[in-house]
Order: sequence, then structure tokens, then C-alpha cells
Amino acid sequence: MAEQVMLYEGKAKRIFSTENPEIVRVVYKDSATAFNGEKKAEIAGKGRLNNAITSLLFSKLMESGIASHFVEKTSELEQLVKRVTIVPIEVVVRNIVAGSLSKRMGLDEGVKLEKPIIEFYYKRDDLGDPIINEDHIAALKLATTEDLETIKEIALRVNDVLVEQFNACNVRLVDFKLEFGKLNDGTILLADEISPDTCRLWDKDTNAKFDKDVFRRDLGNLTDGYEEILKRLGGLSCSK
Amino acid sequence: MAEQVMLYEGKAKRIFSTENPEIVRVVYKDSATAFNGEKKAEIAGKGRLNNAITSLLFSKLMESGIASHFVEKTSELEQLVKRVTIVPIEVVVRNIVAGSLSKRMGLDEGVKLEKPIIEFYYKRDDLGDPIINEDHIAALKLATTEDLETIKEIALRVNDVLVEQFNACNVRLVDFKLEFGKLNDGTILLADEISPDTCRLWDKDTNAKFDKDVFRRDLGNLTDGYEEILKRLGGLSCSK
Repeated sequence: MAEQVMLYEGKAKRIFSTENPEIVRVVYKDSATAFNGEKKAEIAGKGRLNNAITSLLFSKLMESGIASHFVEKTSELEQLVKRVTIVPIEVVVRNIVAGSLSKRMGLDEGVKLEKPIIEFYYKRDDLGDPIINEDHIAALKLATTEDLETIKEIALRVNDVLVEQFNACNVRLVDFKLEFGKLNDGTILLADEISPDTCRLWDKDTNAKFDKDVFRRDLGNLTDGYEEILKRLGGLSCSK
Repeated sequence: MAEQVMLYEGKAKRIFSTENPEIVRVVYKDSATAFNGEKKAEIAGKGRLNNAITSLLFSKLMESGIASHFVEKTSELEQLVKRVTIVPIEVVVRNIVAGSLSKRMGLDEGVKLEKPIIEFYYKRDDLGDPIINEDHIAALKLATTEDLETIKEIALRVNDVLVEQFNACNVRLVDFKLEFGKLNDGTILLADEISPDTCRLWDKDTNAKFDKDVFRRDLGNLTDGYEEILKRLGGLSCSK
């Protein structure tokens, strides 16, 4: 263990090497950030919850035939994942109008979209992660046309599975952010995390928010909502 | 003439009805605006120059088989055009990095793109004309998928013709904005204007700017550049 090297530290996770060059260890942090890092806090329990929820959702996706980098959860804060080179694009899938879509387009929050909207953002903190289109992606050589088609196709399949999964728990999947990675052989794999940090999740009856908007907008105790999501996903009442 | 009604007043043009319900009269103004209307001025001669340049370019495009709403120039400030319903999308075609593309993506101004980039902006002054993608266009029902394909195809053909046209005048067509309209029968037509207000035009030898950036950035006398463009486009040395 002593020889393991930290390969990367992000806002919410640290990545360490392992003895296997194809596997890395992810350690979830309790740090919460919003507005491109302008708002920050340490929230006890967040790392444990996101690790548990992400592990659970990547397992569910695998059961539905959608591979990801996820290998296994090894402790409260840790999981092993396949080593990938992250494609520097944040892929956002939206089912219901909220957040920046509402502000930028002048649409009311909560309106259901007829079809999911996919958005791409250039992963560049120094530029504020600008929204980009497929021509920008080609010009910046962030992904090939073929890889981007694969990414869009996987993103929509993930959406179908997660909408159904959350629906069974009486939760609306409003929108979420995915990241993708590339194995050495060129395979595109779903990567990063899927958690209330990266999804908007609203109670279907009350519209109560169980996601990072609680932190962004100071709506109460963040981890209460994350605990609720974990409970509903793992609870007998919504197990599938 | 007395019964003609002003149908619309934009930042740079007024539109009046004519006796023919299918034709409207465009009157170019000398008003210059930038930064979503935050910077304003009256610049004598600008209306005349934009009317002349737009009329000339729409005629050149027609010779190359690209139809537009343009019918004829009837006076220094006026032209007749077909009446269309404007599609509320600004279509930007970029050949060289400049302006917002440079700022948003962290790319150096002046870098030639391997392939043109097309961007769509939602024509909504109150929202600051946000950049949008094809999923947003579908969700907002701004254009059908079929119409959008037509728009992209025409935009790239316009680019090919204009790049060649300006190249023959020793001018680099850096980028430009197009608008499209729909006839009552559903036909998509190139509309609005094509002028140094809507294009970035740089001298190929000196990179001197002949376009609205001179106004945006206080680089000198705006109409000098516009006069130069009109002269080069109409001059014998670059007639085709």
C-alpha cells in the first residue's frame, strides 16, 4: 500500500494507483463545491454516501448491460475502477427543466421535456466549463465523431435505466452529468460517479430536492437527502 | 406610400409593408450597437454601406445558386425583400478563431480552423442570445430537424461562396452570422443581411479589421473599413 501514488485529486475524489496498472483506487472526499468552486464546505458523510450510491448505480447499470469503469466497492470511502483516460467533456442529460437550462433559455423550472436534451460542456475549470457543441468538440479534438456517437448513445441508455430505477423509488430524475473515459484499447467506458452530487433528484410527490442543489441554494441538511436516496435505492420497497 | 406600415424595427433596420403582401421594404439605419445593445452610436454612412454590401453579396450568392429573401436595392438606404417569418436562431459560421469563440474556449485569435464551426444562438435579447444546440432547438421548437438540416447546408454553401469571394479581394472571412426565414409555403430562405456588421473581415496581408470590431473595440473610423470592403467587392480587381 505504501507505494501507491496519488494520480489525481479532484473536487470530490482522489485517485490512487494500485499494484495492477489497469486498476485505480478512488477515495471519495467529504468536500462539497459549487459554482465552479466558489462555494465550498466539508460535509461529514457525503463521501461515504456518494461512494455507496455510485457503486449501487453502476452495479444496476451493469445488470442492464451498460458497462462502466466500476469494479467494486472496497470500503466505506473507496472503490476500485478501471484505469481510463477521461474524455474532457461533461455530458449532461436533462429530462425536466432546471438549473442553468432554466436560466439560459428563460424556461420555467419543473417543465417536463418531450425528449431528453443532451448538452456537452468542456471540462475546463479555468474557463468555467463552457457549453460546447459537436463542431467545437471536433475542432478541439476532444473526441472523435465516432466516440461522440458512442457517448451519446450510452448517455441516453443510462438515462432510460436510471429514470426507471428512480421512478420505482418515487424519485424524479431531473437531470444528471456523466463523464466518460477511454481504455488503452480505445473502448469508451462510462466513468466518474453517479450520485446526488451529479444528479438532480426530486421527490415525485413533494418535489423535495435530494441533491446538491440543497447545498447550492442553502435548502437544509445536504446528507439527509443523500441518505434518503440511498435508502430508497437499496430499500425493499423499490428494489427491482 | 403613405399607407405603408412599419412592421418591425430592429437595431440596424426598419421593415415596412408594401402594396404587395409578399414583399417588404427594408430601410437600413445608421445605428451601431454592440454587446447586446450596451454600446450604441449613430455612425453616418453605415446604413448606406451595409445596404450596398448586402445587396451586392446576396446578388453574388444568387449567381452561385443560393437563393435569399433579397429582391432588389431601390435606393441608398432601401431594398425590397420577400416577406418571411424569421427563424429565431442566429447561425454563426466560423473559419478562424475570433471573438467569443476565443474567449469561451481559451483559443488564440487568428488560428485557422481545420473545418468551419457552426454555432446556433437563440435570438432572445432579454436572455443575451444564449448559445444553443440542436436538442435545445428541438425542445424550444425553434425549427424542425428537417429545416435545421437545410439551414446548416445553406450556411456552409454560403461560407464556401463568400470565402472565395472575399479571398479574391484579399480579405479573410473570419466568421459571420446568418439569419433564415420561412416563406408561407414553408421554404427556408436566407434572410437578414450580410455586411461588415455581421461578418468579421480581415485584410489578408495586414490583418486590419474592416468590420464591426472596429466599433466594439474602438479601433478607429468604422466606415473606412466598410468603404474598403464595398470598394474591393465592387472593384474591377476582384470582380469575378
